[in-house]
Amino acid sequence: MPKGRLEAFADGIFAFAATLLILNLAVTEGSPLGKQLLEIWPSYVAYAISFTTIGIIWMNHHLVMNQISQVNRPFLLLNVLFLMLIAFIPFPPRLLALHINKDGAQAAALAYGITLTLTALLINALWRYAAWNHRLIRHDADPRVVSGISRSYLPGPIIYFVATAAALLSPRASAALYVGIAIFYVLESSIFGERG
Amino acid sequence: MPKGRLEAFADGIFAFAATLLILNLAVTEGSPLGKQLLEIWPSYVAYAISFTTIGIIWMNHHLVMNQISQVNRPFLLLNVLFLMLIAFIPFPPRLLALHINKDGAQAAALAYGITLTLTALLINALWRYAAWNHRLIRHDADPRVVSGISRSYLPGPIIYFVATAAALLSPRASAALYVGIAIFYVLESSIFGERG
Amino acid sequence: MPKGRLEAFADGIFAFAATLLILNLAVTEGSPLGKQLLEIWPSYVAYAISFTTIGIIWMNHHLVMNQISQVNRPFLLLNVLFLMLIAFIPFPPRLLALHINKDGAQAAALAYGITLTLTALLINALWRYAAWNHRLIRHDADPRVVSGISRSYLPGPIIYFVATAAALLSPRASAALYVGIAIFYVLESSIFGERG
Amino acid sequence: MPKGRLEAFADGIFAFAATLLILNLAVTEGSPLGKQLLEIWPSYVAYAISFTTIGIIWMNHHLVMNQISQVNRPFLLLNVLFLMLIAFIPFPPRLLALHINKDGAQAAALAYGITLTLTALLINALWRYAAWNHRLIRHDADPRVVSGISRSYLPGPIIYFVATAAALLSPRASAALYVGIAIFYVLESSIFGERG
Repeated sequence: MPKGRLEAFADGIFAFAATLLILNLAVTEGSPLGKQLLEIWPSYVAYAISFTTIGIIWMNHHLVMNQISQVNRPFLLLNVLFLMLIAFIPFPPRLLALHINKDGAQAAALAYGITLTLTALLINALWRYAAWNHRLIRHDADPRVVSGISRSYLPGPIIYFVATAAALLSPRASAALYVGIAIFYVLESSIFGERG
Repeated sequence: MPKGRLEAFADGIFAFAATLLILNLAVTEGSPLGKQLLEIWPSYVAYAISFTTIGIIWMNHHLVMNQISQVNRPFLLLNVLFLMLIAFIPFPPRLLALHINKDGAQAAALAYGITLTLTALLINALWRYAAWNHRLIRHDADPRVVSGISRSYLPGPIIYFVATAAALLSPRASAALYVGIAIFYVLESSIFGERG
Repeated sequence: MPKGRLEAFADGIFAFAATLLILNLAVTEGSPLGKQLLEIWPSYVAYAISFTTIGIIWMNHHLVMNQISQVNRPFLLLNVLFLMLIAFIPFPPRLLALHINKDGAQAAALAYGITLTLTALLINALWRYAAWNHRLIRHDADPRVVSGISRSYLPGPIIYFVATAAALLSPRASAALYVGIAIFYVLESSIFGERG
Repeated sequence: MPKGRLEAFADGIFAFAATLLILNLAVTEGSPLGKQLLEIWPSYVAYAISFTTIGIIWMNHHLVMNQISQVNRPFLLLNVLFLMLIAFIPFPPRLLALHINKDGAQAAALAYGITLTLTALLINALWRYAAWNHRLIRHDADPRVVSGISRSYLPGPIIYFVATAAALLSPRASAALYVGIAIFYVLESSIFGERG
């Protein structure tokens, strides 16, 4: 099967999930607008971090698809499961932004972390399914790129799992770690990009 | 007419309908967030099942379009009707998740089942219109794939009709059947995929 | 300029506008779900008619783009204005479905009709801009198809204007006309499709 | 890396952000529908201006991508940041339309202006990153087009910054400037388009 429509479907879901994040920003009647727009700063941070995270994952999906020559049904299915998590991403940042200074911060931080840990696991599963015995890999793929991707995807689930577990001790520390991870991946992408 | 724009329009609607499912997840102020996030588990199940179902139908639409060389106006129109049902899918799972333990479970289970029965009928209509006398089928299409698709689409409407009718006896049994059908199609896709 | 990205942008807006229609369906707590699902039947009609209308306009945009070899800036701009109306379409059907049996039916019917009259005018403007002196038309376009499109687009604005004006006498008659126009275009598409 | 998927992702976000603007239009129960539909005229203006603005920026992104032969990781990342602002655009027009005749007009006008000033800065950053030493520019790109784009993008951030600063004196003057800027860009596009 050709891979074009999977890319179109995936790009659609990435784009909509990212755009839906804006619905997490809201103000209420009542208190002055200017004051509210300043007070909802955690929502802006959540928006920026989540959008960037979706963008980075999209770039990684891009990278995976570039190494692949065709798709098969189990790979499509793994993609559906993966995209189910991508489309889920808008939900927990909203919770985290609304509850970071309240009761519920821990539950929200756990929800955010579990979602991203699972997403990181799934992109590993996707890639390893495709790369196993070069099952779906292009014949002309550069072996160093292939093994480079395999290596670079390994830490993701572990990093997110640690940040998730940190929420049990301190939800704010966990949230700070999520911000840090996103910034790390942005920097890593830029530096890697200058090379490749 | 070329088929590219139909695929783009369809992929957009599939992707968007799947992503809109996330709007069905919501928590309210008031009770503790952690408790609520556990209590809305039927919404997670509804999200996972509906997303997977849309994904499976997307894969089937993919399969149909791969066998087709061009489209004509009645086929476009059948697709518009089919996509109208796809875009409708986010509505009933929300009802079902919110009412599964309340009055209204029966109405919600019927709404879900009727939507999917009609969707299964429409994908049969789409395919049979295209395949009738090889009207829109590619010249180099494999006859075994064509007749295989015809055969594999037949049970869909019947299975969903039975699960819908079960809601008259027990809405919960009906909901369990919907979950079972989705899992069955996931497994069937994977196994079929290993072969083809 | 190549026309591919305009098609992608347009297909995106058509697909999202059509899918957003589902947000117009809502039930409230309080009264029994089954009763409500039956009582909101005008919302189902509005959903079906609006989705089909967007689908038919999409097919017509498809038809226009097929006759065109390239795009220029004013044509892109006309498309932006046209797509602004397409993205507006989800708003008035909601009003019409909610107010058809209440005060406000007239305002809602006028809002729906004005939106579609303007949309019909804009697709005429789009096409006439492209077709004028064969400005953007493919060199190998069939002159009969070109003049056929010019002729077939003429009645649209008039028909919708009449149905809109009917709202001043009877909002329900106007709503019935909108339903009738959509069904007429569906039938016309199918029959035209069998030929071409 | 090929540029096709960036275009697909970008077109998805442009199309979706533009379509989401319709959710900013709402009426409430209570007062008569016809009266409300007239009273929310600032929402129509905000819708038209924002949609057109997104459309014009989309046309400019189109223009940038046409001059580019390939993309690299930092360019993808700049695009993610740029698209983060595009997806943010639906939020401030809603604020501005709802508060233009109330307290909060200043905060809303500032929010709108800051968003568009940043967007104008980012499209400059995007383009200058790509054009610097012809880093990503097509080999056969017309040097006059390349320097023409560089020149035409310069005033954007300044114009929006001035209109934003005007909100400190008069939010309404600022809003009027935003409308004027959008109309200016529409006219500039059409005239430029007749030439190119």
